[in-house]
Amino acid sequence: MGKVNIDGVILTPLKKIEHPSGDIFHGMKESDVGYMGFGEAYFSTIRHNDIKGWNYHKKMTLNLIVPIGDVTFVIYDNRVKSRSKGAFFKVELSPSNYKRLTVPPRLWVAFKGGDADTNFILNVANIVHDPNEVEKLHLNKIPYNFESI
Amino acid sequence: MGKVNIDGVILTPLKKIEHPSGDIFHGMKESDVGYMGFGEAYFSTIRHNDIKGWNYHKKMTLNLIVPIGDVTFVIYDNRVKSRSKGAFFKVELSPSNYKRLTVPPRLWVAFKGGDADTNFILNVANIVHDPNEVEKLHLNKIPYNFESI
Repeated sequence: MGKVNIDGVILTPLKKIEHPSGDIFHGMKESDVGYMGFGEAYFSTIRHNDIKGWNYHKKMTLNLIVPIGDVTFVIYDNRVKSRSKGAFFKVELSPSNYKRLTVPPRLWVAFKGGDADTNFILNVANIVHDPNEVEKLHLNKIPYNFESI
Repeated sequence: MGKVNIDGVILTPLKKIEHPSGDIFHGMKESDVGYMGFGEAYFSTIRHNDIKGWNYHKKMTLNLIVPIGDVTFVIYDNRVKSRSKGAFFKVELSPSNYKRLTVPPRLWVAFKGGDADTNFILNVANIVHDPNEVEKLHLNKIPYNFESI
């Protein structure tokens, strides 16, 4: 479990348990740091070199896990009075860097697909998806060099 | 949502929502039939033509989703007084047959990997994994023709 440069964002190493017939990949337990209740678990996919974002959740805490592929997440903190206001955080998640990324509400998130085949993200969210709690901004509205990813 | 020939087992069609940068795959919501609380979400993988099982959970309700690959599940009902005692149920899950398989406790489950590459199963379980609530039987202890799968 590790804190990063944006207040409230948590990066938690996850276990992979080897098994001769196929490994087990941990995801999230109710006792884990970052667990804020269960609303919905769903998968997002992102094509190679495509980017989704910026997305902002008013209420949802995201718990993001990449069991397949390679996804780089960028988080931007524009919260009033945040100690980390103005900060960006970037992390590349994959089975090789197998960690859970906890994103509290009121942050801006974008993510880019890194694998040429399949990029799968599991989100264990504390609330059910609700379009009314999501805001979106065009990618160029928050300047970030996604080309460098 | 559909019932099958084993009492308490539920097969629920799940939505895939198309998106030009990568589709969304539904998994489980707290309001879904078959949701019995949240304990843990984890992935199992199963190699091509390998079989895991038989496994029996005393307390865990499994909610099984196959977002990648192709997995055939076989369930055997040996519950005392079950209306479906003695029955087997087989289902092949994949992104093409994208459904959630709800398995209540006290049933025997085995599963076989069908895709030559990667077979991933998400289990949204109502309790955290606990080896004390799991029983295992060698595959040949419950006769089933897995070769035919």
